[in-house]
Amino acid sequence: MNQAVPPSVTQLIEAFSRLPGVGPKTASRLTYFLLRAPDHVATSLAQALIDLKTKTQYCSVCFNITEDDPCPICQDSKRDLSQIAVVEEPLDVVAVERVGFYKGRYHVLHGAISPVDGIGPDDLKIKELVKRLQTQTVLEVIIATNPNMQGEATAMFIKQQVAPLGVKVTRLARGLPSGGDLEYVDSITLLRALEGRDEM
Amino acid sequence: MNQAVPPSVTQLIEAFSRLPGVGPKTASRLTYFLLRAPDHVATSLAQALIDLKTKTQYCSVCFNITEDDPCPICQDSKRDLSQIAVVEEPLDVVAVERVGFYKGRYHVLHGAISPVDGIGPDDLKIKELVKRLQTQTVLEVIIATNPNMQGEATAMFIKQQVAPLGVKVTRLARGLPSGGDLEYVDSITLLRALEGRDEM
Repeated sequence: MNQAVPPSVTQLIEAFSRLPGVGPKTASRLTYFLLRAPDHVATSLAQALIDLKTKTQYCSVCFNITEDDPCPICQDSKRDLSQIAVVEEPLDVVAVERVGFYKGRYHVLHGAISPVDGIGPDDLKIKELVKRLQTQTVLEVIIATNPNMQGEATAMFIKQQVAPLGVKVTRLARGLPSGGDLEYVDSITLLRALEGRDEM
Repeated sequence: MNQAVPPSVTQLIEAFSRLPGVGPKTASRLTYFLLRAPDHVATSLAQALIDLKTKTQYCSVCFNITEDDPCPICQDSKRDLSQIAVVEEPLDVVAVERVGFYKGRYHVLHGAISPVDGIGPDDLKIKELVKRLQTQTVLEVIIATNPNMQGEATAMFIKQQVAPLGVKVTRLARGLPSGGDLEYVDSITLLRALEGRDEM
């Protein structure tokens, strides 16, 4: 770069810029903030980054991110073994857990089928799900993929794979989001809400 | 936190949240991005953070951030020793260097006088500037503090300190920003532009 910026500063700016949503300006602001901040702010972030990569792994049962294998949810005997919620990403497990309603287990696919991005069923943990259903006594598979094209395609594919095993397959309800305004709801959501209307 | 989130994930989310402008949602998004990204993305960021704190120091002459002391600008014999631009922060040096016009040296104050924040002249590198002017042959001090209240107060204070030494003190021109629209210029800027009007 230039005389005014030492290489270690440039390198941190570049490393921050690789993160999603962080442009060169933000990266530079974060770097100069860390230069002024007490040492432990930068070093604890560095340590946390190293720990993230050295301490975590995928749970060999559900493929969620975990430090212990199997993960705490798979190890928890109080959680219902007969239900498996299938989600795309570890963050989706966090979202479902936050509701506090679901007491079953999970299965993390690590993505969704997306031919445009070259992601097919074999790139996801779908075979592992089928194997789980063959070896464990599962009564219901709740498909909780994202309500978009990739999520729908993934849900359909899983339904086809699981159907022969005689396991009940459900998926999250489609309809109006709570707190929304009918006027601003998009027409696909409104169509799903009409199709899935409940008797009062 | 909860069963779904391993401690090392929580810790990285917390470490990211300490950065300015990074809320818990962004911190969590960055963390889960790094979980999926190749290992080197997280480890190179960690290494850059450690390097930032271990390899950099303040230049003992101008107090800019540097890996070598004196910094490359202070070591560069092609740069004019007789001019010193006084700026608040290392990022301001980068901004002035980007213009490519200035060929003198710098002096970084590391802040501006701000009684509200409890920052007085003694918290800045002002004494060090005065000492520099006493020992080096400097003809002009260009005050390039920010065009706000703190920057103005700092500029006035430095002017008072430097005046007895017989060194010429200038400051960056105030006026209309290039590419702006007169209609949208704030009245203080317009006042300065009127006061400082140039003959054509």
